[in-house]
Amino acid sequence: MNELNAQLAQINDLLCVINVLNWDARTQMPPGGTETRGSQLATVSAIAQERLTSLALRTALEEAEANLSTLNDRQARAVRQTREAVDLLSRIPEGLTRDLAETKNRAQAVWVRSKGDNDFAAFAPELERMVDLNRRLADAIGYEEHPYDALVRQYEPGMTAGTLRGLFAQLRAGLLPLLNEIRAAPEPRADFLTRDYPEDRQRAFALEMAQAFGYDLTRGRLDASAHPFEISFTRQDVRITTRYRHDFLPGALFGTLHETGHALYEQNVDPALTRTVLASDLLGLYAVGGASYGTHESQSRLWENRVGRSRAFWAHHFPRLQEVFPEQLADVTAEEFWRAVNRVRPSLIRVEADEVTYDLHIMLRVELEMALIEGSLSVRDLPEAWNAKVQEYLGVTPPDFASGVLQDIHWSAGLFGSFPTYTVGNVMASQFYAAARKGVPGLEEHLARGEYGLLREWLTEHVYRHGRTYSPTELLERATGEGLDPAPYLAYLRGKYAGLYHLTPQGETA
Amino acid sequence: MNELNAQLAQINDLLCVINVLNWDARTQMPPGGTETRGSQLATVSAIAQERLTSLALRTALEEAEANLSTLNDRQARAVRQTREAVDLLSRIPEGLTRDLAETKNRAQAVWVRSKGDNDFAAFAPELERMVDLNRRLADAIGYEEHPYDALVRQYEPGMTAGTLRGLFAQLRAGLLPLLNEIRAAPEPRADFLTRDYPEDRQRAFALEMAQAFGYDLTRGRLDASAHPFEISFTRQDVRITTRYRHDFLPGALFGTLHETGHALYEQNVDPALTRTVLASDLLGLYAVGGASYGTHESQSRLWENRVGRSRAFWAHHFPRLQEVFPEQLADVTAEEFWRAVNRVRPSLIRVEADEVTYDLHIMLRVELEMALIEGSLSVRDLPEAWNAKVQEYLGVTPPDFASGVLQDIHWSAGLFGSFPTYTVGNVMASQFYAAARKGVPGLEEHLARGEYGLLREWLTEHVYRHGRTYSPTELLERATGEGLDPAPYLAYLRGKYAGLYHLTPQGETA
Repeated sequence: MNELNAQLAQINDLLCVINVLNWDARTQMPPGGTETRGSQLATVSAIAQERLTSLALRTALEEAEANLSTLNDRQARAVRQTREAVDLLSRIPEGLTRDLAETKNRAQAVWVRSKGDNDFAAFAPELERMVDLNRRLADAIGYEEHPYDALVRQYEPGMTAGTLRGLFAQLRAGLLPLLNEIRAAPEPRADFLTRDYPEDRQRAFALEMAQAFGYDLTRGRLDASAHPFEISFTRQDVRITTRYRHDFLPGALFGTLHETGHALYEQNVDPALTRTVLASDLLGLYAVGGASYGTHESQSRLWENRVGRSRAFWAHHFPRLQEVFPEQLADVTAEEFWRAVNRVRPSLIRVEADEVTYDLHIMLRVELEMALIEGSLSVRDLPEAWNAKVQEYLGVTPPDFASGVLQDIHWSAGLFGSFPTYTVGNVMASQFYAAARKGVPGLEEHLARGEYGLLREWLTEHVYRHGRTYSPTELLERATGEGLDPAPYLAYLRGKYAGLYHLTPQGETA
Repeated sequence: MNELNAQLAQINDLLCVINVLNWDARTQMPPGGTETRGSQLATVSAIAQERLTSLALRTALEEAEANLSTLNDRQARAVRQTREAVDLLSRIPEGLTRDLAETKNRAQAVWVRSKGDNDFAAFAPELERMVDLNRRLADAIGYEEHPYDALVRQYEPGMTAGTLRGLFAQLRAGLLPLLNEIRAAPEPRADFLTRDYPEDRQRAFALEMAQAFGYDLTRGRLDASAHPFEISFTRQDVRITTRYRHDFLPGALFGTLHETGHALYEQNVDPALTRTVLASDLLGLYAVGGASYGTHESQSRLWENRVGRSRAFWAHHFPRLQEVFPEQLADVTAEEFWRAVNRVRPSLIRVEADEVTYDLHIMLRVELEMALIEGSLSVRDLPEAWNAKVQEYLGVTPPDFASGVLQDIHWSAGLFGSFPTYTVGNVMASQFYAAARKGVPGLEEHLARGEYGLLREWLTEHVYRHGRTYSPTELLERATGEGLDPAPYLAYLRGKYAGLYHLTPQGETA
């Protein structure tokens, strides 16, 4: 076991190094460095891959397996997870891995151009190749019912196409009527969100809130980047980024709170898991302490939406925000601010979507990528299918490819199977929150006073500290006593937006 | 040769990655990351070392050597340098490398405390161990005349204790009389250097000058750090740092110009050398395009001192500086500013030393470390020997260890043999400058107009583009037609300070 741990510690080091190189590339690197940074990343990734499939690792793993009965539960799980990853990786032909990497490089570049030129036809051949490679990847990984199961497993172990279809049906049944009622209600005012907000003060306020949630700056930092993200190099160094627009206040603010949720997860993983396989995603060659993409997203959503967009949060913090922006917010009340940052509007762009429409954006993508992978939809027919679904779910029609089928980077990056994790995260967030409310007496009174320690501690105890010890399903069941269940999420949305839009129980505006 | 090149390219990638990790640790990393970053660095360094001594590399090297006659000059040099490094590294026992690394870690921590506590006795056992390990290292590397030769070779190939003794004797003969004359002359005013200078405007002006010299920000960036440095991850990403004090203008400014000199070297290495052994210091496991530490220092000194502290530079740029700091510099002339930033004052601290006294600081250190390595001086007697030399060369006596024998990090880091490169750099800088003046008609008129392109291009042609193709001695001879010669340097200092302090040819103040 010692030898296995030593080897896995070095692999974790390499995954952390890959994260450092990527963080730097996205936040600090001058443009000239792009190509050579690519070589540096390729070299470190190849070495990590090499080590993971090396004879030395297999030998150490077999030795540990021979002594499995002498290991404690955590050690035994580490051994089993390593075995699963090593076996799975050994099933993926080297040529396929290389083809995927090369196609990803090329397809992303083509996607950027195609999006700029609003030219789907230029991107189609790359996407066809990527779909084909992902079908081959699914075959290599193996699955029981649907090839999509093999792909989604990379991001959300235990999740399947079948489960997702059932989940989506329940969500649609709740979300579409709610959305219709909201569309019939008068819109809250939101004019003040687009006034001029100097960047440095946006940053100061966002960071103040992140620290109030418990983000530890001795083990973290906030930077600016084109696309906000959180990334960790062990729990000791967990960085977040956001993006500022001087004429739109919510962007950087809620972006920071979202990434802070991710960061709280990483910063509160048990220190004993540092440099172990239980803080390494071996399949994704990614250093991460969270159990899965969905579990991780549950925490970003929980802190951003359940906490940061709550009425109680703004009742408490709005006076401070007014202090920071006295002129911009002189004519605004806390209640008005809360309503504005929760305004619901069916729109074309996923990343700008509100809580009610967000999952509809996800569903249509997942349904389309499932169809692409199973072969029931061709790339040629994708734009039409996209527009039909956007019309069906959101009642709008994209005027161009760039705000339609070409809007997301995911497919060009080969990330088939990752979209569901956003919705899984939303659903889990409400389950965790409900369990925390049950487990912590007076939780909401604490939150209303701006005290976030008890919530963070409950989440640390039941979620964060375990790192990747448990599968997402096990983790959810241990923390909440339930399997994945959209009911608490739908109840939360219904309750929140009924209050915010003054909806009647019958579905008419009051 | 292709196989060897491929392997060396990956090793260069790893060395660049080490540089990224170190840059981040020194400029961005939150304090919590220190320990795990250490693990990440150790893992990548071990892999680089492993690859460098691997059977695969030896085999590729032997194959390339078998075809040496078919290679062009540059390829042949790459092969020979790889052979030399591989052979040298194979002579250093693994245990010694590990002992050195462990002692360095511990000794640096003890040095920090000892310096803070002004307690040399606490540091002495660590230093004794470090001296002992470096003597063993010298034996392992091998030498003809003096064990110091083996150590200095790591930083300045071709340099020996014997050469240094001769060089120092010549320098002392020139510097000590000059210093005595200056001390007898009236001091220029410098009161205005310690006024209040806001950091952001210091940064803007320093960066403007760096760009005027030709520092390319599409392949570089300027950050703040406790100790200024330049570091590169190939020529495509060459970063510099400086340190700001709001109450002392010259620090950040000349620090930036100094690091800019280093950066110009790296940014102008031939692109064909990117990811090759001719941009890798295999012995030091360091990605660097410059031929040696001394050659590198010659460029930082040349741009900082020969250009940046020249009368012509300030005649041209002082009006702009006054624009940036109108209140602070209202009562100052360009001539006064030039004199102030060149003021000579024997002091205790090397890094604050002026051009006339700097090399005296270096000499005393080199003489002491040579004596430690050859065993003619014991660590116990070092403080006394230090004070005696400071008194002899600079006429001052340290009031404590912290501003005396404990002031530099080098010995605790095991860098015996690196001090001489500072003086070698100063000497070379004047030789390169003299050759450039000969080679570029009207060079000084261009410089006086703030046009730095011709100087940079001459240096690129004769120094920078060659990377590590030539040894420092070869490079110097190719560029200047001469071996290392302190005469141009002494003539420059004499001429500059005679003008600045109004000295007579007879050595009396006018």
